[in-house]
Amino acid sequence: MNTFGQRLRLTTFGESHGPAMGGVLDGVPPRFKIDFEALQRGLDRRRPGQSALTTARNEADRPEFLSGITEEGITLGTPIGFIVRNGDHRSSDYSATLLRPNHADYTYMLRYGIRDHRGGGRASARETVNWCVGGEIARQLLATKGITIQARLISVGGQESGFEEIIAAAKKNGDSVGAVVGCVASGVPGGIGDPVFGKLHARLAQAIMSINAAKGFDYGLGFEAANQLGSNVMDIFEADENGIHTATNYSGGIQGGISNGQDIWFRVAFKPTPTLMKDILTVDIEGAQNILKAAGRHDPCVGVRAVPVVEAMTALTIADAMLADGVSFT
Amino acid sequence: MNTFGQRLRLTTFGESHGPAMGGVLDGVPPRFKIDFEALQRGLDRRRPGQSALTTARNEADRPEFLSGITEEGITLGTPIGFIVRNGDHRSSDYSATLLRPNHADYTYMLRYGIRDHRGGGRASARETVNWCVGGEIARQLLATKGITIQARLISVGGQESGFEEIIAAAKKNGDSVGAVVGCVASGVPGGIGDPVFGKLHARLAQAIMSINAAKGFDYGLGFEAANQLGSNVMDIFEADENGIHTATNYSGGIQGGISNGQDIWFRVAFKPTPTLMKDILTVDIEGAQNILKAAGRHDPCVGVRAVPVVEAMTALTIADAMLADGVSFT
Amino acid sequence: MNTFGQRLRLTTFGESHGPAMGGVLDGVPPRFKIDFEALQRGLDRRRPGQSALTTARNEADRPEFLSGITEEGITLGTPIGFIVRNGDHRSSDYSATLLRPNHADYTYMLRYGIRDHRGGGRASARETVNWCVGGEIARQLLATKGITIQARLISVGGQESGFEEIIAAAKKNGDSVGAVVGCVASGVPGGIGDPVFGKLHARLAQAIMSINAAKGFDYGLGFEAANQLGSNVMDIFEADENGIHTATNYSGGIQGGISNGQDIWFRVAFKPTPTLMKDILTVDIEGAQNILKAAGRHDPCVGVRAVPVVEAMTALTIADAMLADGVSFT
Amino acid sequence: MNTFGQRLRLTTFGESHGPAMGGVLDGVPPRFKIDFEALQRGLDRRRPGQSALTTARNEADRPEFLSGITEEGITLGTPIGFIVRNGDHRSSDYSATLLRPNHADYTYMLRYGIRDHRGGGRASARETVNWCVGGEIARQLLATKGITIQARLISVGGQESGFEEIIAAAKKNGDSVGAVVGCVASGVPGGIGDPVFGKLHARLAQAIMSINAAKGFDYGLGFEAANQLGSNVMDIFEADENGIHTATNYSGGIQGGISNGQDIWFRVAFKPTPTLMKDILTVDIEGAQNILKAAGRHDPCVGVRAVPVVEAMTALTIADAMLADGVSFT
Repeated sequence: MNTFGQRLRLTTFGESHGPAMGGVLDGVPPRFKIDFEALQRGLDRRRPGQSALTTARNEADRPEFLSGITEEGITLGTPIGFIVRNGDHRSSDYSATLLRPNHADYTYMLRYGIRDHRGGGRASARETVNWCVGGEIARQLLATKGITIQARLISVGGQESGFEEIIAAAKKNGDSVGAVVGCVASGVPGGIGDPVFGKLHARLAQAIMSINAAKGFDYGLGFEAANQLGSNVMDIFEADENGIHTATNYSGGIQGGISNGQDIWFRVAFKPTPTLMKDILTVDIEGAQNILKAAGRHDPCVGVRAVPVVEAMTALTIADAMLADGVSFT
Repeated sequence: MNTFGQRLRLTTFGESHGPAMGGVLDGVPPRFKIDFEALQRGLDRRRPGQSALTTARNEADRPEFLSGITEEGITLGTPIGFIVRNGDHRSSDYSATLLRPNHADYTYMLRYGIRDHRGGGRASARETVNWCVGGEIARQLLATKGITIQARLISVGGQESGFEEIIAAAKKNGDSVGAVVGCVASGVPGGIGDPVFGKLHARLAQAIMSINAAKGFDYGLGFEAANQLGSNVMDIFEADENGIHTATNYSGGIQGGISNGQDIWFRVAFKPTPTLMKDILTVDIEGAQNILKAAGRHDPCVGVRAVPVVEAMTALTIADAMLADGVSFT
Repeated sequence: MNTFGQRLRLTTFGESHGPAMGGVLDGVPPRFKIDFEALQRGLDRRRPGQSALTTARNEADRPEFLSGITEEGITLGTPIGFIVRNGDHRSSDYSATLLRPNHADYTYMLRYGIRDHRGGGRASARETVNWCVGGEIARQLLATKGITIQARLISVGGQESGFEEIIAAAKKNGDSVGAVVGCVASGVPGGIGDPVFGKLHARLAQAIMSINAAKGFDYGLGFEAANQLGSNVMDIFEADENGIHTATNYSGGIQGGISNGQDIWFRVAFKPTPTLMKDILTVDIEGAQNILKAAGRHDPCVGVRAVPVVEAMTALTIADAMLADGVSFT
Repeated sequence: MNTFGQRLRLTTFGESHGPAMGGVLDGVPPRFKIDFEALQRGLDRRRPGQSALTTARNEADRPEFLSGITEEGITLGTPIGFIVRNGDHRSSDYSATLLRPNHADYTYMLRYGIRDHRGGGRASARETVNWCVGGEIARQLLATKGITIQARLISVGGQESGFEEIIAAAKKNGDSVGAVVGCVASGVPGGIGDPVFGKLHARLAQAIMSINAAKGFDYGLGFEAANQLGSNVMDIFEADENGIHTATNYSGGIQGGISNGQDIWFRVAFKPTPTLMKDILTVDIEGAQNILKAAGRHDPCVGVRAVPVVEAMTALTIADAMLADGVSFT
């Protein structure tokens, strides 16, 4: 359903062109001071309308916090309710009847028999603004333990540099392009994660694969490990005055589903934006052929704006796992 | 914790060298006849000791069913309890104090401050026998709807053929080798999956990444989609007398987190078996350097025996999602 | 945490004197038309400020719905987000340091080390406005199956009639008085409820005991059954053209945790309102003795306004159980 | 479903006349030494066949522990699997077709369309042996914090003394009789419980109402509070060198859903055993009238053997709540 997490739980709602997005973040420890300016800066990173490379839709994306926080910005331990109003609608860009390929139009109809076609409704990546509100709070919580989370574009269209040109070229052609995002979480203490069904990397996989357009996840050497001999990828143990650690980190900071104190690192594959600025042959919900006209405002490369979303989901996942494992933040 | 699933829930227990593995499968619909012979054949596929390519440990792996089923093999709708006795122990092969690299020895100590070192304890892939018991029942349930699940080795050590030789060579050298397993689920009806945090592919990702040694998951074009232009990977809709479908299936049978009626296909990367038949420099739990002597019995390529486990987790995930979405099996 | 239900899930937030109450109702079936006027009439039943017998606080209690519903009032199957602004604050009535007896002031401090003292913060019965928003939607859903839920005052201060006078007398004396509320759910089909830990009456018990000031719950003959011989309380089976039913309904419509198609009936005991209009000796959070001055606006008998809240929680519980058991509402 | 608890989770299985009962207790902290002799003594308290007042069925009730514990009896932090073999069957005492009044025969058929009629199958109170295994471990865990749980019969057939005679008289007449059980948990620290939907008393209500034949639950003054004026039931705060406490404990040790450090006390109403040693007119599953012959072995007063079960569920609930609230037991 629409809840993420066990002990730090984010429950969200909102259709892209409805009155508001919003959510409830439950389980934030009490007596923690939120830095709302830093939170807003975090949100601004995913906000559309900021450069030629991203969608022109312009939303203020200023969350209104409704509970769980004192007037001084201190958490009460009670759930934090928030809403983010939707401002800049252009619903007429969207057809109520045509099925857009590689979108969720058809599958929503299969599942619900009804859908809000305006801006993709609930299936829009607009939902991720909720995740970033929760994720920024989680990130600030983690920072009190010295934990940092940093994602970045690794490749676009298969190239590891020249991203701006690749995206601009795709945009000019009315096309879109895929990307790989990498992420590193540093400072996570060892011992976090459940060893069987709640493996830390399996929880990260679920979290990250929930992001719109994500097609793949791997951690540490990932798919490359499948090509290797065991003797080439051993993270040999060493010990010094700081205790036991591994000399290398092919494992990606998690062994047996539990963090080992090294950097947690992983990759995410994003498909190209499914909306093209080209006419496309498709069918309507009755199955009749028709032309989907290019319209709407869209990022030619979803990977760009996914970077802060990857960080947000990582922060939520790690903070949740730490709280579940009894780490005290107060 | 040690429970998988929402509506079809598998709760498991067991240490590799303890008295027994076992579990509780809750949520199986009533009045369904289990084919125990087929179930045993399914279990036999993952059983060790069957070929030169897999570990020599020999376990009968015959589950004893304790509840939830009539004497005629008909499900009651009540939880199915089962145990699988552990037979062929050789605990003396395992050190109580040395930390094996790329295993969970160290992280278990970080988390619990105690571990059952015999055979890897709870971290052993022996646990997957429980998953296969549950998975075989789920598979039989899905078969009543015409759904089939088929996994296979796609590559070993980066090569797409000649697997036996690659594995034999690694074994001869006391080494191990990684592998990629692919899986296809056919016949899954459209409309299954929750669209936000319970996306069907995100649940599959968590399930599959729970398998020992899994390092990566992607579905449909997966990581390859990240290298592509949008115009190259469009699954254009068509309609005929059977209704609406896509002309291609780059998406992997899931769009917006919901199945679209096409084949669901995905890949899993497995790292090389972490145990080598070579002496390895390591440390003990006090941090003192020592030599880990080659011992124990191990698969040189975990991907081989992972094939039926991938199928089991896929069957559990899809059956769970269908039950959660109100599909009736009775 | 702050989520109720399994398949119909209400997640709530809000402090009594914060900006707003609100919540997310997840799992409402799609394509269901909500009657917002009826919903508002339902909310008005619990609204304060309606008679001399209830608190003088006046809130408009008009929820703003933010998602999950089309402009025509049809549910989308996606989560329904809503907020209810808090209007009529009088926070100066509340002490930040004195602990009010029989309230949650002290226990919130024990648990969180911080509390919003204004109006009781999160512990205020103001929270039940959220439950009534969810409950009214659940009630409308149940009505499509012919199910009705009706609660009423059974006794006040131990008397089964003359409630107005008893409450008025207590109020005049600055005192308060307890009450018993009874509730009947008619039309619930047989077969609803899980037989072991998810017994329908156990879920009702948890739901109803969550209401502020509830001290006891029993169903069917309840505590009276404990005084009886078995031969006096047998619900003998009969059969006629409508099938099998019981001749009496001592059991309260649930046997073995599963509904049997008869009326579900139960009772709830509410303690007297803990706030008196009298000065009371108490301590502050440092343990220093002090006088708690009579202030604030309070119902002298919480049982009165609890009646619609009992109905709301009953509706949520039964609708949740029916959805969990696969009943289709679409 | 068949799982109880959030952080200390008991998942159970078993039909009364099947091969075995059993379960998985997940979430027990590591490095805790279980006293198996004390555990067995605890189980023996609920075991049938011990006195003329209880059923003559004789079961050894010796659990076999299969995982999660070292050979020295130390917990590993991994799930504890156990089974309890069913020995003394007399299935011929039970009709496959007749519906026993006040039992779950009819409702199981409504829900599942199939049932194990032998000994009541899954609906039998035999299931509570599983709860007592889990409960005894929870009790030992709580004891390390100085917490004790003690239940006792408060009344039988409405009388507060002379229990043996009342039960013997009922038995002699082939009848049965109801009872009230009281329970006190001492030493529970303040601050335990979630304040809204996870109120500690609401969780206790669900746990206790899950016990077979339970019809009512109240805590503190309970139903009696509903008859009182507020000024009569105030738990006035006092402070001394041990800190803040209440002078009385009408509240039952919980305020606003959170423990306040005082004794937690509550009552449970049990109906008379539904099986009488008299012929009863009933119907079969086709609705045809028939005579249910007196047979089987049954406690004339379920309240007697319920005493240790009430303690078990209380121990599980409190230990679960403490673990969820981050209390460390290691």
